[in-house]
Amino acid sequence: MELYTYFRSSAAYRVRIALNIKEINHTLTAVNLLKGDHGNASYKALNPQGLVPTLKLNDGKVICQSTAILEYLEKEYPAIPLLPNNSFDAATVRAWSNIIACDIHPLDNLRVLKYLAGELSVEAEEKMTWYHHWIIEGFTSLESQLLATPYCFGKSVTLADVYLIPMVYNALRFNLPMEQFPKILAIYNACNTLYAFDKAKPENQADCVISS
Amino acid sequence: MELYTYFRSSAAYRVRIALNIKEINHTLTAVNLLKGDHGNASYKALNPQGLVPTLKLNDGKVICQSTAILEYLEKEYPAIPLLPNNSFDAATVRAWSNIIACDIHPLDNLRVLKYLAGELSVEAEEKMTWYHHWIIEGFTSLESQLLATPYCFGKSVTLADVYLIPMVYNALRFNLPMEQFPKILAIYNACNTLYAFDKAKPENQADCVISS
Repeated sequence: MELYTYFRSSAAYRVRIALNIKEINHTLTAVNLLKGDHGNASYKALNPQGLVPTLKLNDGKVICQSTAILEYLEKEYPAIPLLPNNSFDAATVRAWSNIIACDIHPLDNLRVLKYLAGELSVEAEEKMTWYHHWIIEGFTSLESQLLATPYCFGKSVTLADVYLIPMVYNALRFNLPMEQFPKILAIYNACNTLYAFDKAKPENQADCVISS
Repeated sequence: MELYTYFRSSAAYRVRIALNIKEINHTLTAVNLLKGDHGNASYKALNPQGLVPTLKLNDGKVICQSTAILEYLEKEYPAIPLLPNNSFDAATVRAWSNIIACDIHPLDNLRVLKYLAGELSVEAEEKMTWYHHWIIEGFTSLESQLLATPYCFGKSVTLADVYLIPMVYNALRFNLPMEQFPKILAIYNACNTLYAFDKAKPENQADCVISS
């Protein structure tokens, strides 16, 4: 299968991690968001929203939206699972994932930050306060719930870690003081010792341009 | 089971629809967001984020986050399904649901609108433009994809309808011209002829206060 990705997109980062954990053969195709590649007609034919990631399956069919992709991979490639067997436990893992996917990440997305700076003329400092605000709100709730033994839900990596690590990466990139979230920071460090997470890091992507 | 709900919360509205469709015995407990009930210690003990909905199972266990709740109900109450059997089709339905759950709704949430008006001193008119903007972005993409025959994915109601109808309800409430989205409007009307959707409407809730 083929994943359309951008090194800094945390939604794409999630899917990169899951593909690595599940040891699924795949190729990565870069979509340069800064250059506007996501707005090209050829890309929008695959992904009408013009967002990354997009997963093209071996038969040519396409799945958009990282959460839909991750659920699909979990169903079709169950050998290395990312959700607990018990459905209540799976609900807990999904609820933690949703805090990131629905309550933090959408608010700190590039297109939203552009709207704030553009249409609403929000100054850089206020924009950074906004950015931090939604992470702090969500992380405060997660910090009170995560097990961190050593991963979010215990001894096995789950979807919650797959969502959390890219969000922490962004928080650190934008200088959020993480000492207030010791469990989250410990999970971040534990996950990043694993090959699947390390290989998925933005700086380890072929399309990584650190100066951008 | 017991659902903690607020009549106008569209995340709670989704779960009300699903419980009705699946014919699951449940009670509804109102959490008045305008009065700040969601910030009470007793509610935050159930839902650390202080958001609605929360589902309390018969054994007293609690699930937060509407998407986690809906996936749990789908797994545990499969008799009347809300996802197609085929996992690629299910991915399509989830992707459409995610457009609403991740790309529209989080940006137009009450807490976000309060932040815009408060911390960022955004005027009422600009706030309404923001509100419409994210719906138009997401609905434009959905309009190009949904089948509307007569529901989002064909002849059976799916999770995509469960997410879509509360979002359309909000769009209409805030006077978004919906004529530009004829398929979405047709799906909205088709769903609302069904008992499960009608019963879940904000105005049909015991805690509904139209003047609020």
